[in-house]
Amino acid sequence: MDMTDRYAYLGPEATFTEAAALRFPALAGATLEPFPTVHAVINAVRTGEVAGAVVPVENSVEGSVNATLDELIRGEPLAITAEVLLPVTFTLLARPGTDLADVRRIVTHPVAEAQCRAWVSAKLPDAIIALGPSTAAAAASVAGRTPGPDGTVYDAAISAPLAGERYGLTALAVDIGEDSDAITRFVLATRPTKPGRPTGSDKTTLVAFIRDDHPGALLEILEQFAARGVNLTRIESRPTGNGMGRYCFAIDVEGHVADARVGEAMMGLRRVCATVRFLGSYPRADGVRPPVLPGTSNADFADAATWLDQLRG
Amino acid sequence: MDMTDRYAYLGPEATFTEAAALRFPALAGATLEPFPTVHAVINAVRTGEVAGAVVPVENSVEGSVNATLDELIRGEPLAITAEVLLPVTFTLLARPGTDLADVRRIVTHPVAEAQCRAWVSAKLPDAIIALGPSTAAAAASVAGRTPGPDGTVYDAAISAPLAGERYGLTALAVDIGEDSDAITRFVLATRPTKPGRPTGSDKTTLVAFIRDDHPGALLEILEQFAARGVNLTRIESRPTGNGMGRYCFAIDVEGHVADARVGEAMMGLRRVCATVRFLGSYPRADGVRPPVLPGTSNADFADAATWLDQLRG
Amino acid sequence: MDMTDRYAYLGPEATFTEAAALRFPALAGATLEPFPTVHAVINAVRTGEVAGAVVPVENSVEGSVNATLDELIRGEPLAITAEVLLPVTFTLLARPGTDLADVRRIVTHPVAEAQCRAWVSAKLPDAIIALGPSTAAAAASVAGRTPGPDGTVYDAAISAPLAGERYGLTALAVDIGEDSDAITRFVLATRPTKPGRPTGSDKTTLVAFIRDDHPGALLEILEQFAARGVNLTRIESRPTGNGMGRYCFAIDVEGHVADARVGEAMMGLRRVCATVRFLGSYPRADGVRPPVLPGTSNADFADAATWLDQLRG
Amino acid sequence: MDMTDRYAYLGPEATFTEAAALRFPALAGATLEPFPTVHAVINAVRTGEVAGAVVPVENSVEGSVNATLDELIRGEPLAITAEVLLPVTFTLLARPGTDLADVRRIVTHPVAEAQCRAWVSAKLPDAIIALGPSTAAAAASVAGRTPGPDGTVYDAAISAPLAGERYGLTALAVDIGEDSDAITRFVLATRPTKPGRPTGSDKTTLVAFIRDDHPGALLEILEQFAARGVNLTRIESRPTGNGMGRYCFAIDVEGHVADARVGEAMMGLRRVCATVRFLGSYPRADGVRPPVLPGTSNADFADAATWLDQLRG
Repeated sequence: MDMTDRYAYLGPEATFTEAAALRFPALAGATLEPFPTVHAVINAVRTGEVAGAVVPVENSVEGSVNATLDELIRGEPLAITAEVLLPVTFTLLARPGTDLADVRRIVTHPVAEAQCRAWVSAKLPDAIIALGPSTAAAAASVAGRTPGPDGTVYDAAISAPLAGERYGLTALAVDIGEDSDAITRFVLATRPTKPGRPTGSDKTTLVAFIRDDHPGALLEILEQFAARGVNLTRIESRPTGNGMGRYCFAIDVEGHVADARVGEAMMGLRRVCATVRFLGSYPRADGVRPPVLPGTSNADFADAATWLDQLRG
Repeated sequence: MDMTDRYAYLGPEATFTEAAALRFPALAGATLEPFPTVHAVINAVRTGEVAGAVVPVENSVEGSVNATLDELIRGEPLAITAEVLLPVTFTLLARPGTDLADVRRIVTHPVAEAQCRAWVSAKLPDAIIALGPSTAAAAASVAGRTPGPDGTVYDAAISAPLAGERYGLTALAVDIGEDSDAITRFVLATRPTKPGRPTGSDKTTLVAFIRDDHPGALLEILEQFAARGVNLTRIESRPTGNGMGRYCFAIDVEGHVADARVGEAMMGLRRVCATVRFLGSYPRADGVRPPVLPGTSNADFADAATWLDQLRG
Repeated sequence: MDMTDRYAYLGPEATFTEAAALRFPALAGATLEPFPTVHAVINAVRTGEVAGAVVPVENSVEGSVNATLDELIRGEPLAITAEVLLPVTFTLLARPGTDLADVRRIVTHPVAEAQCRAWVSAKLPDAIIALGPSTAAAAASVAGRTPGPDGTVYDAAISAPLAGERYGLTALAVDIGEDSDAITRFVLATRPTKPGRPTGSDKTTLVAFIRDDHPGALLEILEQFAARGVNLTRIESRPTGNGMGRYCFAIDVEGHVADARVGEAMMGLRRVCATVRFLGSYPRADGVRPPVLPGTSNADFADAATWLDQLRG
Repeated sequence: MDMTDRYAYLGPEATFTEAAALRFPALAGATLEPFPTVHAVINAVRTGEVAGAVVPVENSVEGSVNATLDELIRGEPLAITAEVLLPVTFTLLARPGTDLADVRRIVTHPVAEAQCRAWVSAKLPDAIIALGPSTAAAAASVAGRTPGPDGTVYDAAISAPLAGERYGLTALAVDIGEDSDAITRFVLATRPTKPGRPTGSDKTTLVAFIRDDHPGALLEILEQFAARGVNLTRIESRPTGNGMGRYCFAIDVEGHVADARVGEAMMGLRRVCATVRFLGSYPRADGVRPPVLPGTSNADFADAATWLDQLRG
């Protein structure tokens, strides 16, 4: 099979991550394969087993986003080429013919349990909730495909809507989570590649490893962005892997590496940091086109360069 | 039972989190109770069911540290009163009498699987690894206490060392994870309380909610710290819960709220931010006593205040 | 004579500086005495010979404003208690009965000559301009009180309007300088004293001596102001007097030392600088009441202090 | 006469400015002509009457350095191509045959008087000091070339050493000023020209006009320098000429416009400022070669640019 048609995602199948994978336009028609861990997913990209991987990077329901971040920070460089934002909507799934009133034993993932406990208490006060390794495994066990946590079969599962379609289950209730605005962010990671063209609604992800851990080190990094009017949308310090004492910063900024302001800020980072890992420029899933601040457009940078050339004679 | 003797931790029992809980000096002699989710753990503190809770906040093996962070960011304020750093050492556990060479079927949590896959491939090339909801559940099923993922019993589990003691299992191999330096950080959260006395080796945790999302908002926050010589040890932007568009910053800094430099920086944050949530000052688990920069000691602040008073007449 | 009624100004009399001195409300009814140099003026305050001194600090026509600044930077501390802005308007003065058309020989100070040369060329193309030590000396010599630069008497002087009144001369033309918007700033310096009450339209002057000369030293100073929302209206680096290699910064900021934001910024300076010299808080001559930025009012500082006290328990 | 051989300086002749002019290597063999005011000196350059001009820019004894600065800030652009640092050493000059003990009447410029008053009081307690328009005029009058301030001839003048040679006077005492370390800085200004080659010990002078007067405007400017590791050696805010309300900043930085770090910082200024006037890059008179900070060498900038090109594909 052509590697370029195969993509990995954090399994098991029928989870939110598969639902996200199905939303990436670039993956339409591709073969999607579940892998058991973030490491396995990412590794499949690095070895060339698959063309790319879909992994959660913010607010994951199941699976650690820190694991994703750490995989991207370390090892062979990868490129993020797209992102998807997926609303987190929990559905109560049962075998066809099951009545809501008959549900006594529910199975789900701990995070889903926390989100849906209030709803269950209110609507099914007599039900108990057992915990399993994933929302999809919960649905699969309800469908009779696999044993439940204690080896038996439950009445209902709290899962992603996709699991209902996949396992032939019926939704007894939808959107039963507490935080109805919850959104999870997934990215498509591939081996390093030339970034796509800027769209005016772009995001750039990079990791800055500070040279030494002194007060003001982060401030120096942020000044590189501020000096070029580049706005951050996310920042997270992460240990670099050698104990807790050495830090790097995973950063998302507005704009594209092809934008003059982003490019120059990145060159600044490159100079003041021990090293900088560029993880890609890609279209924003929210489609927002933030205004470009006065003095920071490509034309402003070009004008300044022309001016400097003239001064230098 | 006296609430003041009961503490919650993220279960199940015999995981790394319970191992961490056992290391908090303040919990010596207390009753430790597992709760199924971070939300449940934290909620037990908020309702007063327990006196405090032990939760992972960095590099958790099982359970999402984002969940912890989000619980601390939102809802009724809590206080972090202590932290523990726990080395992550994976152990291969089996029933007494089992020989390493006989191990064919291993069960563990996905994160542990990722960490130990290389060791298993090298030492037990014929073994398969099944995934369960926690490393403790894996050990329990090996001990015959509960069914395994597919309802049967496995030869060995990859778990925290504590699970061996708890379930009467024997360690066939220790420290089999790839990243032998991995450290997880846990905190003890209680209802708001007067912070302990500064020790010279302290950490302060707070959450800054920016007033509006403009370029330079984070820089303004960091300048409040820089202007007083306060060093950050961790930062993470988090959505505040209403979609992805509004951010807050969870920040750990060196020093104690009673230190003049930390207190003044916090007052600065309070002025430039929409709101600031103080989550506590507590002794650093690593015992590091970072040097106080020139001009930022309590004496320096007192001297400056005396000087200003004189100028004001 | 009561020292408290005597004030010095940079002479000679009938210059712009005396004109400025006459505008200070605090000096109404006081005896004003000219001194030949800025050093002499300032020294008279330091020795107690006079109660205060009027000296130029920006855009002086005659006399070096750097000399003023250096006198304030070094030696016994002084306090600026008021400022005056004086429009610089040059007047062509002659003995009564002189006709403009008859003016052939003009005398003035070099700076005035530069400002008025265009007017003279246009209106009196045949006139020559001789240079003397001050505009007042020029007027005095035209009035026959003293010899002119070459020992003789000139037809007209270019001087401050005040010189006309003082020496009985007639204005043949007014406001003949090129830069009709020119404004000079003078301050009233006294021995250290309790600052007056804040008016909402205040200025504070201070001198910051950096601890060592490293890149970013000035940035650190400015961050102390920025972190409290304090705006600068003037800054000037000056050598501290030991060669050119060591710098200090003379700074004017908006606001009063009694304002919380200014006071805290000054305490910050005190901590990060080798030393800080406070030169006074006084009402702005222009009467501007700049808006106080959100989060920087006295109430905002008080609220933050209350909040911190509660957190500290 | 060839314009390219004629240079102007702030007169009169035999002052410190002429002494400085004689020290510029580029002016060896050129004709040096005194002009009465800074405006006249600068104007002679602008009109092409002379090839360049020597003017004081810091710590002038006679003549306002603000006047120089304002001439450079406004009007047709000029270029600073060299600087000279001149120690300020005051000499007591008399006609040959005069004995120190016979000196009763001294003439000099007010600034020199202030500097030498202590020496005169100690050594010549009975002497009086009259004030004239320049130290050179004082020497000339002592030499009998011109009348003194009151039309008569004085016993001695306090002047620059050069005045002694020029007027055939004898030095009765040397270095009699109070501040024996005083140094004055002069620059050679020409019409705009291609800057000379960088020497490793260079200075760049520019004027930044802020876009609007808001708190933090200066900080933004300085961050452009800080983000590239460029150190300031001088800064001075100046009104732009329309009242006192609008400011610009005259700035000297270490390094040459051809240095990558200086060039990029200047482009940054160009983008964030209303306008930037480049006044030249030229060798430092003090010969200091400040260390280039890590990450800010030309090689570092070239490396970063190569890296970015590769990322952009």
